[in-house]
Amino acid sequence: MGEYEQREEEVALPFDPANTANDGSVIFIGKVRSEWTSRPDCPKNLVQARERGHGAKVEVFEPYLEGLIGLEKFSHAYIVYWMHQARRDLIVQYPRFKDMPTGTFALRSPVRPNPISLAIVKILSIDAKEGIIEIDAIDCLDGTPLLDIKPWFDSVDNVKI
Amino acid sequence: MGEYEQREEEVALPFDPANTANDGSVIFIGKVRSEWTSRPDCPKNLVQARERGHGAKVEVFEPYLEGLIGLEKFSHAYIVYWMHQARRDLIVQYPRFKDMPTGTFALRSPVRPNPISLAIVKILSIDAKEGIIEIDAIDCLDGTPLLDIKPWFDSVDNVKI
Repeated sequence: MGEYEQREEEVALPFDPANTANDGSVIFIGKVRSEWTSRPDCPKNLVQARERGHGAKVEVFEPYLEGLIGLEKFSHAYIVYWMHQARRDLIVQYPRFKDMPTGTFALRSPVRPNPISLAIVKILSIDAKEGIIEIDAIDCLDGTPLLDIKPWFDSVDNVKI
Repeated sequence: MGEYEQREEEVALPFDPANTANDGSVIFIGKVRSEWTSRPDCPKNLVQARERGHGAKVEVFEPYLEGLIGLEKFSHAYIVYWMHQARRDLIVQYPRFKDMPTGTFALRSPVRPNPISLAIVKILSIDAKEGIIEIDAIDCLDGTPLLDIKPWFDSVDNVKI
Protein backbone atom coordinates (compact mmCIF):
# COMPACT_ATOMS: atom_id res chain seq x y z
CA MET A 1 0.00 0.00 0.00
CA GLY A 2 2.97 2.29 0.62
CA GLU A 3 3.29 3.03 -3.06
CA TYR A 4 -0.19 4.56 -3.09
CA GLU A 5 0.28 7.46 -0.73
CA GLN A 6 -2.40 10.07 -0.36
CA ARG A 7 -1.46 13.36 -2.04
CA GLU A 8 -2.63 16.85 -1.23
CA GLU A 9 -6.23 17.49 -2.37
CA GLU A 10 -6.94 13.78 -2.58
CA VAL A 11 -9.96 12.64 -0.56
CA ALA A 12 -10.29 9.37 1.34
CA LEU A 13 -13.55 7.71 2.29
CA PRO A 14 -14.39 7.77 6.01
CA PHE A 15 -13.97 3.98 5.97
CA ASP A 16 -11.64 1.62 4.15
CA PRO A 17 -13.44 -0.79 1.80
CA ALA A 18 -10.43 -3.11 2.13
CA ASN A 19 -11.61 -3.77 5.69
CA THR A 20 -15.36 -3.28 5.43
CA ALA A 21 -16.26 -4.86 2.08
CA ASN A 22 -18.44 -7.89 2.62
CA ASP A 23 -21.33 -7.61 0.19
CA GLY A 24 -19.92 -10.36 -2.00
CA SER A 25 -16.77 -12.42 -2.43
CA VAL A 26 -14.60 -13.14 -5.42
CA ILE A 27 -12.56 -16.17 -6.32
CA PHE A 28 -9.36 -16.01 -8.34
CA ILE A 29 -9.68 -18.17 -11.45
CA GLY A 30 -6.20 -17.63 -12.88
CA LYS A 31 -3.37 -15.15 -13.30
CA VAL A 32 -2.28 -12.55 -15.78
CA ARG A 33 1.26 -13.19 -17.07
CA SER A 34 2.97 -10.00 -18.21
CA GLU A 35 6.47 -8.60 -18.64
CA TRP A 36 5.84 -6.05 -15.91
CA THR A 37 7.19 -6.98 -12.49
CA SER A 38 7.24 -3.63 -10.67
CA ARG A 39 4.84 -0.71 -10.59
CA PRO A 40 7.28 1.88 -11.99
CA ASP A 41 7.90 -0.42 -14.95
CA CYS A 42 4.20 -1.12 -15.57
CA PRO A 43 2.51 0.72 -18.46
CA LYS A 44 -0.20 3.12 -17.36
CA ASN A 45 -2.73 1.87 -19.89
CA LEU A 46 -3.23 -0.53 -22.77
CA VAL A 47 -2.08 1.96 -25.40
CA GLN A 48 1.29 2.25 -23.63
CA ALA A 49 1.42 -1.52 -23.18
CA ARG A 50 0.86 -2.06 -26.90
CA GLU A 51 3.48 0.53 -27.80
CA ARG A 52 6.07 -1.28 -25.70
CA GLY A 53 5.46 -4.32 -27.83
CA HIS A 54 5.47 -7.21 -25.38
CA GLY A 55 2.72 -9.73 -25.61
CA ALA A 56 1.12 -11.19 -22.54
CA LYS A 57 -0.67 -14.31 -21.40
CA VAL A 58 -3.64 -15.21 -19.31
CA GLU A 59 -3.36 -18.40 -17.27
CA VAL A 60 -6.61 -20.10 -16.27
CA PHE A 61 -6.51 -22.48 -13.30
CA GLU A 62 -7.34 -26.14 -13.83
CA PRO A 63 -10.90 -26.31 -12.46
CA TYR A 64 -12.01 -23.67 -14.94
CA LEU A 65 -10.50 -25.00 -18.18
CA GLU A 66 -13.79 -26.13 -19.69
CA GLY A 67 -14.97 -22.56 -19.43
CA LEU A 68 -12.76 -21.76 -22.43
CA ILE A 69 -14.75 -23.95 -24.86
CA GLY A 70 -15.90 -21.74 -27.71
CA LEU A 71 -13.73 -18.75 -26.89
CA GLU A 72 -11.65 -19.47 -30.01
CA LYS A 73 -14.53 -18.10 -32.10
CA PHE A 74 -13.86 -14.58 -30.87
CA SER A 75 -11.21 -12.12 -32.01
CA HIS A 76 -11.21 -10.13 -28.78
CA ALA A 77 -12.10 -10.65 -25.14
CA TYR A 78 -12.49 -8.73 -21.92
CA ILE A 79 -9.94 -9.66 -19.29
CA VAL A 80 -11.25 -8.78 -15.82
CA TYR A 81 -8.69 -8.76 -13.03
CA TRP A 82 -8.25 -7.84 -9.39
CA MET A 83 -5.79 -5.09 -8.47
CA HIS A 84 -4.79 -6.73 -5.22
CA GLN A 85 -2.03 -4.25 -4.39
CA ALA A 86 -4.15 -1.11 -4.68
CA ARG A 87 -5.60 0.80 -1.76
CA ARG A 88 -9.38 1.13 -1.94
CA ASP A 89 -10.30 4.20 0.08
CA LEU A 90 -9.44 7.16 -2.20
CA ILE A 91 -12.57 8.64 -3.74
CA VAL A 92 -10.86 11.74 -5.21
CA GLN A 93 -7.40 11.34 -6.71
CA TYR A 94 -4.85 13.71 -8.19
CA PRO A 95 -2.76 11.80 -10.70
CA ARG A 96 0.31 13.59 -12.05
CA PHE A 97 -1.14 13.74 -15.58
CA LYS A 98 -4.30 15.57 -14.44
CA ASP A 99 -4.57 19.32 -13.90
CA MET A 100 -7.11 19.01 -11.10
CA PRO A 101 -8.30 16.50 -8.48
CA THR A 102 -10.58 13.98 -10.14
CA GLY A 103 -13.18 11.53 -8.91
CA THR A 104 -12.21 7.88 -8.85
CA PHE A 105 -15.07 7.01 -11.22
CA ALA A 106 -13.65 9.42 -13.80
CA LEU A 107 -10.27 7.65 -13.64
CA ARG A 108 -9.01 4.23 -14.65
CA SER A 109 -6.70 4.14 -11.63
CA PRO A 110 -6.43 0.76 -9.86
CA VAL A 111 -7.28 2.64 -6.67
CA ARG A 112 -11.07 2.34 -6.27
CA PRO A 113 -13.62 0.88 -3.80
CA ASN A 114 -13.66 -2.37 -5.76
CA PRO A 115 -10.23 -2.88 -7.34
CA ILE A 116 -11.62 -4.48 -10.49
CA SER A 117 -9.87 -3.58 -13.74
CA LEU A 118 -10.64 -4.64 -17.25
CA ALA A 119 -9.01 -4.63 -20.65
CA ILE A 120 -10.29 -5.44 -24.10
CA VAL A 121 -7.51 -7.48 -25.68
CA LYS A 122 -6.88 -9.32 -28.91
CA ILE A 123 -6.77 -13.10 -28.63
CA LEU A 124 -3.70 -14.47 -30.42
CA SER A 125 -3.96 -18.14 -29.43
CA ILE A 126 -5.71 -20.40 -26.95
CA ASP A 127 -4.27 -23.59 -25.47
CA ALA A 128 -7.43 -24.86 -23.79
CA LYS A 129 -5.69 -27.95 -22.39
CA GLU A 130 -3.05 -25.92 -20.56
CA GLY A 131 -5.32 -22.96 -19.91
CA ILE A 132 -3.03 -20.45 -21.61
CA ILE A 133 -4.38 -17.60 -23.73
CA GLU A 134 -1.92 -15.45 -25.60
CA ILE A 135 -3.06 -11.85 -25.93
CA ASP A 136 -1.62 -8.81 -27.65
CA ALA A 137 -0.87 -6.74 -24.54
CA ILE A 138 -1.87 -6.03 -20.95
CA ASP A 139 -1.22 -3.15 -18.58
CA CYS A 140 -1.04 -4.94 -15.23
CA LEU A 141 1.69 -6.60 -13.20
CA ASP A 142 2.76 -10.18 -13.73
CA GLY A 143 0.79 -12.40 -11.37
CA THR A 144 -2.29 -10.17 -11.15
CA PRO A 145 -5.26 -12.33 -10.10
CA LEU A 146 -7.79 -13.08 -12.83
CA LEU A 147 -11.51 -12.78 -12.15
CA ASP A 148 -13.18 -13.34 -15.49
CA ILE A 149 -12.89 -13.61 -19.25
CA LYS A 150 -15.77 -12.47 -21.46
CA PRO A 151 -16.18 -12.60 -25.20
CA TRP A 152 -16.20 -9.24 -26.94
CA PHE A 153 -19.01 -8.48 -29.38
CA ASP A 154 -18.80 -5.77 -32.00
CA SER A 155 -22.58 -5.26 -31.83
CA VAL A 156 -22.68 -4.66 -28.07
CA ASP A 157 -19.22 -3.46 -27.05
CA ASN A 158 -18.03 -1.21 -29.82
CA VAL A 159 -19.04 2.42 -29.62
CA LYS A 160 -19.87 4.08 -32.89
CA ILE A 161 -18.91 7.68 -32.30
CA MET B 1 -31.24 -19.71 -7.88
CA GLY B 2 -34.13 -21.87 -9.03
CA GLU B 3 -34.42 -19.96 -12.26
CA TYR B 4 -30.93 -21.10 -13.26
CA GLU B 5 -31.42 -24.83 -13.42
CA GLN B 6 -28.71 -27.05 -14.82
CA ARG B 7 -29.61 -28.38 -18.28
CA GLU B 8 -28.44 -31.52 -19.99
CA GLU B 9 -24.81 -31.27 -21.19
CA GLU B 10 -24.12 -28.38 -18.86
CA VAL B 11 -21.15 -28.89 -16.52
CA ALA B 12 -20.89 -27.72 -12.93
CA LEU B 13 -17.66 -27.13 -11.05
CA PRO B 14 -16.90 -29.67 -8.29
CA PHE B 15 -17.33 -26.81 -5.80
CA ASP B 16 -19.65 -23.82 -5.64
CA PRO B 17 -17.84 -20.46 -5.75
CA ALA B 18 -20.85 -18.94 -4.03
CA ASN B 19 -19.76 -20.82 -0.90
CA THR B 20 -16.00 -21.05 -1.36
CA ALA B 21 -15.05 -17.66 -2.79
CA ASN B 22 -12.90 -15.77 -0.31
CA ASP B 23 -9.96 -14.37 -2.26
CA GLY B 24 -11.35 -10.86 -2.08
CA SER B 25 -14.51 -9.00 -1.11
CA VAL B 26 -16.61 -6.45 -2.91
CA ILE B 27 -18.67 -3.57 -1.58
CA PHE B 28 -21.82 -2.32 -3.26
CA ILE B 29 -21.46 1.37 -4.13
CA GLY B 30 -24.90 1.92 -5.63
CA LYS B 31 -27.70 0.37 -7.66
CA VAL B 32 -28.73 0.11 -11.26
CA ARG B 33 -32.23 1.46 -11.89
CA SER B 34 -33.91 -0.15 -14.87
CA GLU B 35 -37.38 -0.87 -16.20
CA TRP B 36 -36.77 -4.62 -15.85
CA THR B 37 -38.21 -6.17 -12.71
CA SER B 38 -38.28 -9.87 -13.56
CA ARG B 39 -35.85 -12.13 -15.40
CA PRO B 40 -38.25 -13.11 -18.21
CA ASP B 41 -38.81 -9.43 -18.90
CA CYS B 42 -35.12 -8.52 -18.83
CA PRO B 43 -33.37 -7.97 -22.18
CA LYS B 44 -30.64 -10.52 -22.90
CA ASN B 45 -28.06 -7.92 -23.90
CA LEU B 46 -27.53 -4.21 -24.45
CA VAL B 47 -28.63 -4.31 -28.08
CA GLN B 48 -32.02 -5.68 -27.02
CA ALA B 49 -32.19 -3.17 -24.19
CA ARG B 50 -31.56 -0.29 -26.59
CA GLU B 51 -34.13 -1.60 -29.04
CA ARG B 52 -36.78 -1.64 -26.33
CA GLY B 53 -36.15 2.04 -25.88
CA HIS B 54 -36.24 2.58 -22.14
CA GLY B 55 -33.50 4.59 -20.58
CA ALA B 56 -31.97 3.63 -17.28
CA LYS B 57 -30.23 5.18 -14.32
CA VAL B 58 -27.31 4.43 -12.10
CA GLU B 59 -27.65 5.45 -8.46
CA VAL B 60 -24.44 6.03 -6.50
CA PHE B 61 -24.62 5.83 -2.71
CA GLU B 62 -23.81 8.91 -0.65
CA PRO B 63 -20.27 8.09 0.56
CA TYR B 64 -19.09 7.76 -3.04
CA LEU B 65 -20.54 10.92 -4.59
CA GLU B 66 -17.23 12.76 -4.90
CA GLY B 67 -16.03 9.91 -7.07
CA LEU B 68 -18.17 11.33 -9.88
CA ILE B 69 -16.16 14.57 -10.19
CA GLY B 70 -14.93 14.82 -13.77
CA LEU B 71 -17.08 12.04 -15.19
CA GLU B 72 -19.11 14.68 -17.08
CA LYS B 73 -16.18 15.03 -19.48
CA PHE B 74 -16.85 11.59 -20.93
CA SER B 75 -19.46 10.52 -23.46
CA HIS B 76 -19.51 6.88 -22.38
CA ALA B 77 -18.71 4.85 -19.29
CA TYR B 78 -18.36 1.28 -18.18
CA ILE B 79 -20.97 0.22 -15.66
CA VAL B 80 -19.72 -2.76 -13.62
CA TYR B 81 -22.34 -4.61 -11.61
CA TRP B 82 -22.85 -7.72 -9.51
CA MET B 83 -25.30 -10.36 -10.70
CA HIS B 84 -26.38 -11.28 -7.22
CA GLN B 85 -29.13 -13.67 -8.31
CA ALA B 86 -26.98 -15.84 -10.57
CA ARG B 87 -25.58 -19.22 -9.63
CA ARG B 88 -21.79 -19.38 -9.91
CA ASP B 89 -20.90 -23.03 -10.43
CA LEU B 90 -21.69 -23.70 -14.10
CA ILE B 91 -18.51 -23.80 -16.19
CA VAL B 92 -20.17 -25.12 -19.36
CA GLN B 93 -23.60 -23.80 -20.31
CA TYR B 94 -26.10 -24.56 -23.04
CA PRO B 95 -28.14 -21.45 -23.67
CA ARG B 96 -31.15 -21.86 -25.95
CA PHE B 97 -29.65 -19.63 -28.64
CA LYS B 98 -26.50 -21.79 -28.94
CA ASP B 99 -26.21 -24.95 -31.03
CA MET B 100 -23.74 -26.59 -28.67
CA PRO B 101 -22.62 -26.48 -25.04
CA THR B 102 -20.34 -23.51 -24.56
CA GLY B 103 -17.78 -22.52 -21.96
CA THR B 104 -18.78 -19.84 -19.49
CA PHE B 105 -15.88 -17.62 -20.62
CA ALA B 106 -17.22 -17.69 -24.18
CA LEU B 107 -20.62 -16.44 -22.96
CA ARG B 108 -21.88 -13.22 -21.45
CA SER B 109 -24.26 -15.13 -19.19
CA PRO B 110 -24.60 -13.79 -15.63
CA VAL B 111 -23.80 -17.34 -14.47
CA ARG B 112 -20.01 -17.40 -13.89
CA PRO B 113 -17.51 -17.98 -11.05
CA ASN B 114 -17.47 -14.24 -10.34
CA PRO B 115 -20.87 -12.79 -11.24
CA ILE B 116 -19.44 -9.52 -12.50
CA SER B 117 -21.11 -8.00 -15.54
CA LEU B 118 -20.28 -4.89 -17.45
CA ALA B 119 -21.83 -2.62 -20.02
CA ILE B 120 -20.49 0.29 -22.04
CA VAL B 121 -23.26 2.88 -21.92
CA LYS B 122 -23.83 6.41 -23.12
CA ILE B 123 -23.97 9.03 -20.39
CA LEU B 124 -27.03 11.27 -20.86
CA SER B 125 -26.79 13.35 -17.68
CA ILE B 126 -25.11 13.38 -14.29
CA ASP B 127 -26.61 14.77 -11.09
CA ALA B 128 -23.49 14.56 -8.93
CA LYS B 129 -25.28 15.97 -5.88
CA GLU B 130 -27.94 13.26 -5.91
CA GLY B 131 -25.67 10.60 -7.34
CA ILE B 132 -27.89 9.88 -10.33
CA ILE B 133 -26.49 9.15 -13.78
CA GLU B 134 -28.91 8.82 -16.68
CA ILE B 135 -27.73 6.33 -19.27
CA ASP B 136 -29.11 5.21 -22.63
CA ALA B 137 -29.89 1.61 -21.69
CA ILE B 138 -28.97 -1.31 -19.46
CA ASP B 139 -29.65 -5.04 -19.62
CA CYS B 140 -29.92 -5.93 -15.93
CA LEU B 141 -32.71 -6.04 -13.37
CA ASP B 142 -33.79 -3.00 -11.40
CA GLY B 143 -31.87 -2.91 -8.15
CA THR B 144 -28.80 -4.76 -9.39
CA PRO B 145 -25.87 -3.87 -7.12
CA LEU B 146 -23.29 -1.50 -8.60
CA LEU B 147 -19.56 -2.22 -8.21
CA ASP B 148 -17.84 0.41 -10.29
CA ILE B 149 -18.05 3.12 -12.94
CA LYS B 150 -15.12 3.72 -15.27
CA PRO B 151 -14.64 6.32 -17.99
CA TRP B 152 -14.55 4.97 -21.50
CA PHE B 153 -11.69 6.00 -23.78
CA ASP B 154 -11.84 5.73 -27.54
CA SER B 155 -8.06 5.21 -27.67
CA VAL B 156 -8.02 2.26 -25.27
CA ASP B 157 -11.48 0.72 -25.37
CA ASN B 158 -12.61 0.87 -28.96
CA VAL B 159 -11.58 -1.97 -31.19
CA LYS B 160 -10.67 -1.05 -34.72
CA ILE B 161 -11.58 -4.13 -36.68
